[in-house]
Amino acid sequence: MGCELCERDGGSTLWRDDFCRIVRVLSDDYPGYCRVILNRHAREMTDLNSGERERLMRAVFACEAAVRELFHPDKVNLASLGNQVPHLHWHVIPRHADDRNFPDPIWAAPLREGRAGGAPRRAAVSDGRLGTSLSALLAR
Amino acid sequence: MGCELCERDGGSTLWRDDFCRIVRVLSDDYPGYCRVILNRHAREMTDLNSGERERLMRAVFACEAAVRELFHPDKVNLASLGNQVPHLHWHVIPRHADDRNFPDPIWAAPLREGRAGGAPRRAAVSDGRLGTSLSALLAR
Repeated sequence: MGCELCERDGGSTLWRDDFCRIVRVLSDDYPGYCRVILNRHAREMTDLNSGERERLMRAVFACEAAVRELFHPDKVNLASLGNQVPHLHWHVIPRHADDRNFPDPIWAAPLREGRAGGAPRRAAVSDGRLGTSLSALLAR
Repeated sequence: MGCELCERDGGSTLWRDDFCRIVRVLSDDYPGYCRVILNRHAREMTDLNSGERERLMRAVFACEAAVRELFHPDKVNLASLGNQVPHLHWHVIPRHADDRNFPDPIWAAPLREGRAGGAPRRAAVSDGRLGTSLSALLAR
């Protein structure tokens, strides 16, 4: 059986190198939601060597820094689950106190309608703006 | 308002140093579930410097290695959420294909009864055994 993340990017690509890529997840409920995806196929963080783990986490933390700067979340959620698609990828999810699940995880039953049905109250951030921020952070 | 994780360990402590601690979460549904908790109060990974981030993730990955060795999970889930208690802590959750939520996150609605109501089918692992494994991994 093929692996979904080996075969497609899984969203619009904001940044990539020869090791991993950062894609934006289309989400009205969680604007700024990104995934950091390892390019090669591996299941668990401890299947990588320590240098590779550090490199992947560097991309995750750059992503956290970028979404904090641009989306001003009340909290950032980081998660590597992969139960459905066991190919290493990290969810970086800016959370707001008025989003549909806060303070529960986004995978729990919704607590309120959220913003999917209405106009977003926060300024939109383009893929280009987010990609520029990531490139600057990851060039350091 | 006080912070719950500044005031108590949040489970039985398996390992600790002057920077962070690893506690076992009492869970019939997810045996081997641990949390890695930063000792001092900070909200986000990007509130730490890069050396501190690396040190905390080293404990998280040691925990992943220990639970893989002792609980043989089908997948390990790692998550830093902190919406309810905004004090940095990582969930390290060994997942099995027959647990109550698999392949969904443990925070989603249960898909089956799980093992909480019945006798566990896997050998119990003592806190002492898990702590010894963590100490060996973190001494390297």
